Amino acid sequence: MDRRSFLKTSALGGSAAAATALAAPAYAQGKRTLTMVTTWGRGLAGVFDAAQRVADSVTAMTDGQLTVEVKAAGELVGAFEVFDAVTAGQADMYHGADYYFVGQHPAFAFFTAVPFGMTAQELANWYYMDGGMELHHELGELFGIKSFLAGNTGAQAGGWFRKEIAGPEDFNGLKFRMPGLGGEALGKLGASVQNLPGSEVYQALASGAIDGTEWIGPWADEKAGFQEITKFYYTAGFHEPGAGLSVATNLEVFNSLTPAQQKIIEIACAETHQWNLAQFLANNGAALQRLQSAGVKVLSFPDSVWDAMGNAAKETLEGNRDGDLYDKIYDSAFASMRSSSGWIEASEGTYRAQRDRVLG
Amino acid sequence: MDRRSFLKTSALGGSAAAATALAAPAYAQGKRTLTMVTTWGRGLAGVFDAAQRVADSVTAMTDGQLTVEVKAAGELVGAFEVFDAVTAGQADMYHGADYYFVGQHPAFAFFTAVPFGMTAQELANWYYMDGGMELHHELGELFGIKSFLAGNTGAQAGGWFRKEIAGPEDFNGLKFRMPGLGGEALGKLGASVQNLPGSEVYQALASGAIDGTEWIGPWADEKAGFQEITKFYYTAGFHEPGAGLSVATNLEVFNSLTPAQQKIIEIACAETHQWNLAQFLANNGAALQRLQSAGVKVLSFPDSVWDAMGNAAKETLEGNRDGDLYDKIYDSAFASMRSSSGWIEASEGTYRAQRDRVLG
Repeated sequence: MDRRSFLKTSALGGSAAAATALAAPAYAQGKRTLTMVTTWGRGLAGVFDAAQRVADSVTAMTDGQLTVEVKAAGELVGAFEVFDAVTAGQADMYHGADYYFVGQHPAFAFFTAVPFGMTAQELANWYYMDGGMELHHELGELFGIKSFLAGNTGAQAGGWFRKEIAGPEDFNGLKFRMPGLGGEALGKLGASVQNLPGSEVYQALASGAIDGTEWIGPWADEKAGFQEITKFYYTAGFHEPGAGLSVATNLEVFNSLTPAQQKIIEIACAETHQWNLAQFLANNGAALQRLQSAGVKVLSFPDSVWDAMGNAAKETLEGNRDGDLYDKIYDSAFASMRSSSGWIEASEGTYRAQRDRVLG
Repeated sequence: MDRRSFLKTSALGGSAAAATALAAPAYAQGKRTLTMVTTWGRGLAGVFDAAQRVADSVTAMTDGQLTVEVKAAGELVGAFEVFDAVTAGQADMYHGADYYFVGQHPAFAFFTAVPFGMTAQELANWYYMDGGMELHHELGELFGIKSFLAGNTGAQAGGWFRKEIAGPEDFNGLKFRMPGLGGEALGKLGASVQNLPGSEVYQALASGAIDGTEWIGPWADEKAGFQEITKFYYTAGFHEPGAGLSVATNLEVFNSLTPAQQKIIEIACAETHQWNLAQFLANNGAALQRLQSAGVKVLSFPDSVWDAMGNAAKETLEGNRDGDLYDKIYDSAFASMRSSSGWIEASEGTYRAQRDRVLG
């Protein structure tokens, strides 16, 4: 596979053309196409949309000076091969969920979600104000990438089951799809945890290769079709309370861009974080109603499950301590969460409770 | 006052310079400076920062092709004169809170906040997914402006009082600063409501011209210094559950920009909405602790106050119906809020309650 496309940038055109082209100046001759590989099947609701949003925003804001071409999983490389493809320079950037790459470094989990960790808003507070973005860069640079949050699913549903969950013992021996440190925690309850990319989950569930799965939430889950196979749906989960998605650009490629282009990528990714979260949250309510109308039983885990998951989550988070960058990221994230969550509860939490009480 | 600065754009430079300037192409000769007036005193915590963030992002992403110069309230026009300045073409754009302009049209309130209305996340859901942005444009275009959300304070505090509030009757005769439809609702409880720009509130409170004020939340309020004058602080309020800030650009100016420049303004504003919300929420927790250490008494309104405010809010929102665009915006906003709030409660609400219970 060839090196990055920017190395093939064409030579400048003639000076006469450049001198007269106000709307399409000389610089237009240096147009570059960046290839974005993704962990998502083409058209996968919400997550593929986020990748496309970043690409479209960068292309539009640079007036095509940077044109980002999105490849779905399998079109250039497989879903879980995108990390290696970008670090090796086979692709220019990826869009994905960084917790797929806890094998490369467990701290990548913090830039998607960790069990009993941050909500989407708490993640944004940490990332944009309390040093999270700088730590993302520090972690990425170990692997030769420049990373930015670029999407968020909001608090994910607990997932799809073939039968009701009465207590933590029901997870023992259950073949369940859950990536990242949430999956590692679930394994401590005796589950046989599978890590599958989104486009492979339906088939695995239909064939019985897995007994159940979490994916995202009502809107994306309905489009994936899990209600055709399983009927028990837990709306709140412990594993991804506000899952961030990321763009990572090969560091050499990123450093070769102009400061304006670098800023455009940074701002396009951040804007997509907000846009994508709104997309999930604006669509989930109506989707949940449709699922219920289709016979899906909507449930909440009993307290005993939350308690067991709380212990397993803490054990997992502590068990990955390395006396190094993981610790730095873990401690920074949780310190920020503790600092920001109290006010959110006192102001918005009180407001929501009163609004529900007064408006009924 | 002169017309917009873009009319004074200098002529193109010579062709030789343009032909050789790869890093600064011919187009650089067409650089424009846009003047942004604001409703904020220079350096006012959070709100002025949001204006500066939009300006810096636009300047950086266009590599200075558009350079946005921020004027504080009073530097070019007064805080509440920015709307007229932009519609008249005296300034290119403003950054402010659109509910200052309910006199121009009451529906502007929905793009900041209305009493018993949307949280910051619900506002984003409506604005970016359920037609809110398009309605903002439709409203703005009546006045010759192109509007975008460009900041958010989160759920605002109930405010500062000289004495405790035991019931709704304590608002009778109280001279209180509160803009927008929240202020109109408070007036129905008998309060003498004042609408003052942020930079004038401290002096009004210190002189006794007002008995109390709401401003934003612990971090911005502490910087404003209200704890030096009053000691009773209500953390949750009914009036601004997620106050959006806006940029409005003169429509002729906006339409004269290239599509890439228009997209850059749109994305810069949206990114600032998220960035600014994170700024307030990351800073409020520690600020509240400092205020409490300094002797401020932190309180919540009794249910009787929320009930009275609920009635007053509904009366206000319904009383502004016009059989026209106000109704369209009101109905659209509340339909979106009702649709998205249920899932947020079922997923993130349940998660937060369990996290608090399990982690303690």
